[in-house]
Amino acid sequence: MRLSRYFLPVLKETPSEAQIVSHRLMLRAGMIKQASAGIYSWLPLGYRVLRRIEQIVHEEQQRAGHIPLLMPTLQSAELWQESGRYDAYGPEMLRIRDRHDRDMLYGPTNEEMITDIFRSNVSSYKNLPLTLYHIQWKFRDEVRPRFGVMRGREFLMKDGYNFDLDYENAMIAYDRHMVSYLRTYERMGLKAIPMRADSGPIGGDDTHEFLVLADTGESEVFYDSAITDLRLGDRLVNYDDPAELRAICEEWTTPYARTDETHDETLYGEIPEDRRQTSRGIEVGQIFYFGTKYSEAMGAMVTTPDGARVPVHMGSHGIGVSRLLGAIIEASHDDRGIIWPEGVTPFHAGIVNLKQGDSATDAVCTELYAGLAAAGLSPLYDDREERAGAKFATMDLIGLPWRITAGPRGVAQGKVELTSRRTGESEEMSPAAAIAKVVELYKGIA
Amino acid sequence: MRLSRYFLPVLKETPSEAQIVSHRLMLRAGMIKQASAGIYSWLPLGYRVLRRIEQIVHEEQQRAGHIPLLMPTLQSAELWQESGRYDAYGPEMLRIRDRHDRDMLYGPTNEEMITDIFRSNVSSYKNLPLTLYHIQWKFRDEVRPRFGVMRGREFLMKDGYNFDLDYENAMIAYDRHMVSYLRTYERMGLKAIPMRADSGPIGGDDTHEFLVLADTGESEVFYDSAITDLRLGDRLVNYDDPAELRAICEEWTTPYARTDETHDETLYGEIPEDRRQTSRGIEVGQIFYFGTKYSEAMGAMVTTPDGARVPVHMGSHGIGVSRLLGAIIEASHDDRGIIWPEGVTPFHAGIVNLKQGDSATDAVCTELYAGLAAAGLSPLYDDREERAGAKFATMDLIGLPWRITAGPRGVAQGKVELTSRRTGESEEMSPAAAIAKVVELYKGIA
Repeated sequence: MRLSRYFLPVLKETPSEAQIVSHRLMLRAGMIKQASAGIYSWLPLGYRVLRRIEQIVHEEQQRAGHIPLLMPTLQSAELWQESGRYDAYGPEMLRIRDRHDRDMLYGPTNEEMITDIFRSNVSSYKNLPLTLYHIQWKFRDEVRPRFGVMRGREFLMKDGYNFDLDYENAMIAYDRHMVSYLRTYERMGLKAIPMRADSGPIGGDDTHEFLVLADTGESEVFYDSAITDLRLGDRLVNYDDPAELRAICEEWTTPYARTDETHDETLYGEIPEDRRQTSRGIEVGQIFYFGTKYSEAMGAMVTTPDGARVPVHMGSHGIGVSRLLGAIIEASHDDRGIIWPEGVTPFHAGIVNLKQGDSATDAVCTELYAGLAAAGLSPLYDDREERAGAKFATMDLIGLPWRITAGPRGVAQGKVELTSRRTGESEEMSPAAAIAKVVELYKGIA
Repeated sequence: MRLSRYFLPVLKETPSEAQIVSHRLMLRAGMIKQASAGIYSWLPLGYRVLRRIEQIVHEEQQRAGHIPLLMPTLQSAELWQESGRYDAYGPEMLRIRDRHDRDMLYGPTNEEMITDIFRSNVSSYKNLPLTLYHIQWKFRDEVRPRFGVMRGREFLMKDGYNFDLDYENAMIAYDRHMVSYLRTYERMGLKAIPMRADSGPIGGDDTHEFLVLADTGESEVFYDSAITDLRLGDRLVNYDDPAELRAICEEWTTPYARTDETHDETLYGEIPEDRRQTSRGIEVGQIFYFGTKYSEAMGAMVTTPDGARVPVHMGSHGIGVSRLLGAIIEASHDDRGIIWPEGVTPFHAGIVNLKQGDSATDAVCTELYAGLAAAGLSPLYDDREERAGAKFATMDLIGLPWRITAGPRGVAQGKVELTSRRTGESEEMSPAAAIAKVVELYKGIA
């Protein structure tokens, strides 16, 4: 994309309404614009990151064998009356009446609707195991929305639901979700720690939250520092092997890691003192096993191999897709702006032309642009007639991990400069070498 | 995808509530499930087609230089009060009150919100031309929703908005949209004819609707049959060349083509008699130029090169993304089921194993599956323990354009059968040749 043709309304001033750094930076970088309290428009740059995160979530869910579908945003009240949650859910549920005076609501979650889809179509153990998920906009009418997309009212969430014959199989689905979530966050450059959690209003027996460590997190967390060293890395995971899944989950859940809700001082005290850590965390996902709560209430039954009819065992598993943008920025920024991890960056590299209109420099920038695009990467070329300082400030603010700078002096010597946003380190090289280096850096990522 | 692991709840009976063929087939093929009146869940197969259509729309919009963003589904009433449409819009607008008693609505369209984004960020002609678009769920509270996704209440739409300095530039944007729409529909295997239209409630001076010919269309259409021969084909379009865009638009708008709303008997009478056609049509898109209607009401002004401040010239341009699934099926089916055009098919080819469990046949099917997947295609492998007849019926119903059938007799001779869903013609060949042929058929499409 050429910046002169793009829509990137960066702000010079720091917006006063934003209390936390991710909110400030998203507004300043022209990523979002508030439409009304807790409701945002995703401007082009923000939308690119949102789509990228969504894509990673889709890829990792499908790699785990989970099947995508899409449920609507509006739901009828009837289904929620069946489960008993229509009255139980408080004022955070946005209730709506249509022109025929039918009670509806903007879905805050989808247990009822997915259970209805299941019971209408599946009646035998032969169709199990089954995990269905979608990525759809949800609404929770927060009394005091704040922190930008971190605690908005209209938000994008991945919610998935497993259907299994019994507890043991549901636990395999639980493990499969935990592993797929670990992979998902790792691809986004995030260190998200699974922590034993409280079941909360959905109700559940086994549940873990995934928390990203950041000073602005709403939860206090306590953990064994050993857990932050764990990496899946390039490990190949066979999602059809329950023992392998279990082993990974053991690895990640054995070190102590809990939020203040489930914290246990005695267990915490047993960690070697130099590994005891306390911090704050941002919740970016949660997995639940809740058994037959909905299948019993709503009659989602399957026949067993013996011919018996039993309620199906279920769990629900969520990733806060729009919230992740805020969490990633909270975890990765400096005083000049955002620092995108390579996995989620809106553009793979920025190209800064230090002298727009200088024909040799323009030609090199065009060559860089074409070379990166030909390799399947998306560069952002700042081709505006602007001072170098303004161009650098914009690139730093929007946080592309790699920047290639071309100016008349370097170009005369056949050189451009490749700079890392994270370290600030620069290296001079030929345009072809810079292209090759950036392509190499994104191998297996883009 | 292996069918044994997929969620494809096909129905044996024809649902009685569905009045038109696309609705019946979408229900029978397990593509959608009604959630409440005019609101549907997109089951996995339907969701795949929806995503594919969305992707084509994105690609063609971005090819034309239009920039994607994403506005929220819920809007505050205030913006609509500014434009005067809050009171003017009838009961089709779903009005909502939040917990703080603020008036909100589920957006039926986004002229106000995009104008607000523009006026908050752009103030100079230097940032023009600009076209922003999004693909987002909309809601229109139809008094009598019907025809499945063709006239639903919650529907997915691409709506784009151009911002230009004056009428002449806005007309270039108009032409650019028309050409990008022609390409979009052609890639979906649709013959969509641009017809001069009435401006309707959005209000506009220049406007064309795009109609797909189908017996179940809600509009009566009159046209010169010459227009149905036009194709863009492989023509490369330079979207930066207004003269080229104009020439294409001339080509498509010179032959007579109008709906009953704008029909002119005299002009129609001037067509040579053997080319006069009347039919029914389904509207799948519309482009509008409406000038300064919203920019004046909402103060979206830009400075001109002379330093004057003028209201920006706008247009809005829509494609009914979810409705397109119905329109494509209406235009392409037979009595056995759907016939997907290659451009939008949910899976590129079906693989039918005539004797599941026969090791030689299983091995060939696995080879076919792996070969197609390695070429970047998505096969659907019917690996269920089912009779051949049931497998063929399912494949015909869900309408994949190509089917490869493997059975013990053919496999013993090193042969499988490749069958076209459209023509029913079959050809015997080696598994490798079948893979190569299918890959060839999707060249430039998948």
